[in-house]
Amino acid sequence: MPRPSLTIALVQQSDQGSIAANLEDCEAAIRAASIRGCDLVVLQELHNGPYFCQIEDPNLFDLAEPIPGPTSERFSALARELNLVIVGCLFEQRAPGIYHSTAMVLDADGSLAGIYRKTHIPCLPNRAESFYFTPGDLGFNPIDTAVGRLGVLIGWDQWFPEAARAMALAGAEILLYPSAMGADPNEDEDELQRQVDAWITIQRGHAIANALYVAACNRVGYEPHPSGVGAGLRFWGHSFVCGPQGELIAQADDQTPKLLVAEIDLARTELIRRRWPLLRDRRIESYSDLARRFRN
Amino acid sequence: MPRPSLTIALVQQSDQGSIAANLEDCEAAIRAASIRGCDLVVLQELHNGPYFCQIEDPNLFDLAEPIPGPTSERFSALARELNLVIVGCLFEQRAPGIYHSTAMVLDADGSLAGIYRKTHIPCLPNRAESFYFTPGDLGFNPIDTAVGRLGVLIGWDQWFPEAARAMALAGAEILLYPSAMGADPNEDEDELQRQVDAWITIQRGHAIANALYVAACNRVGYEPHPSGVGAGLRFWGHSFVCGPQGELIAQADDQTPKLLVAEIDLARTELIRRRWPLLRDRRIESYSDLARRFRN
Repeated sequence: MPRPSLTIALVQQSDQGSIAANLEDCEAAIRAASIRGCDLVVLQELHNGPYFCQIEDPNLFDLAEPIPGPTSERFSALARELNLVIVGCLFEQRAPGIYHSTAMVLDADGSLAGIYRKTHIPCLPNRAESFYFTPGDLGFNPIDTAVGRLGVLIGWDQWFPEAARAMALAGAEILLYPSAMGADPNEDEDELQRQVDAWITIQRGHAIANALYVAACNRVGYEPHPSGVGAGLRFWGHSFVCGPQGELIAQADDQTPKLLVAEIDLARTELIRRRWPLLRDRRIESYSDLARRFRN
Repeated sequence: MPRPSLTIALVQQSDQGSIAANLEDCEAAIRAASIRGCDLVVLQELHNGPYFCQIEDPNLFDLAEPIPGPTSERFSALARELNLVIVGCLFEQRAPGIYHSTAMVLDADGSLAGIYRKTHIPCLPNRAESFYFTPGDLGFNPIDTAVGRLGVLIGWDQWFPEAARAMALAGAEILLYPSAMGADPNEDEDELQRQVDAWITIQRGHAIANALYVAACNRVGYEPHPSGVGAGLRFWGHSFVCGPQGELIAQADDQTPKLLVAEIDLARTELIRRRWPLLRDRRIESYSDLARRFRN
């Protein structure tokens, strides 16, 4: 059973220039979250380094590490010391030639409660994730922790109602999205605003469809293109927490690193599902086309 | 191929007290839409009468009519006369004991282009739809018309990302939702606001997930409880049109009947899908659990 009330922290960060500096930044934020009474801390996608996917370079596979490995062990000790749950997200080396963007969940006793490997992988200009990340094959399985059953998804998964729904049907009590969404810094202002609004809105939609809290922790700040020729990426921050009716509870801005703290009540899910019984009314006999690519 | 630009009208109405008066109200609105150059007019759910589902009364099945039938024939003649497409929504008598909430699509040449029978049926206090409406068995099939391939869904279907996705995968070029959403007039103001926001947000989410325009035409005004004892229902209006990034283009208020007109460009769907190729990136091998009720 989830605790009636839970304090969650999202660590919206910008790249500090080295793995050591990023790890220190994460650790400082987690310690600050602990001082503020947080039970659960969510880090952004690939928090140990820059968003390296702007170019396709086989040498960058060197950035990957195994799980368990040095980072998971460091955060495991921290989770145990502070008695809180940490959700991180690493570039995982699983085997030679098999790499993933992988979320790790460290339970409050320091154990590795579980991992989730990103399922939906984008291939977009300056976001060559499909070069680096093998699609996850762990399915949509929530991870049990001291603070509840966590439905952890990553980045591009945000745009797929299927992923959120599958996590909800597997019993997730909250949806968490470590993320690294950004745009070309020269993007048209109106277009950028539509993209950011869409990113927030579709995730609020997942909250509503499943009557679950949603927390999205996004990267912030500018990262240059490694070639020096491209325009680079400006990550749009806007990390947020919303409730099971999609109501925004806390939100960071688009410019600054932020420790975003929110008090949530997981018991609201049952209340909302009783009033608005959407899971009762699904017509599962009518959904076979969802497993098709298209119908022509 | 869809026309590059399309003018759509949503007829947000309140009950006029009789079928004859409601039909006249619809016809007047459709003629006004024609004068304003509209190519497509969407009426609200069950526009011929009051929202009769507040109580369970077998005598009320008398309100149903077949399709084709008197109302479809009247609107068919009107569609032909005005050379526009009309999407209506009736209480359909299909057979003794088989009734549906059914959308009818009258093409610009007056032909009945197709129907869609509401799939997701709510059973809620003062909304006993599951007493009246057999779940639709036509699947999620868009309807071809002179203005494009219309993905027509109805009311409660709004809350299910599965329905919107299935329509998109079947080639729908726009999603249309005749609707009759409302609340107890004594509902807490904050709760009501969350519900209305949720209703808008989840549908904007369907637009974003599928890069399709969404138009929701909702009932407005107060309708008393037939027993004289219940509090009745206040329909929340707020009919709206949003674009394929979820951006709001037009919106009615929550108090007044409204002919809501919007200019839309269906070609934006391909533009957005090229930039943000979500349909490409669906992991259909991972979605089998969506056809399950729950995983325990």
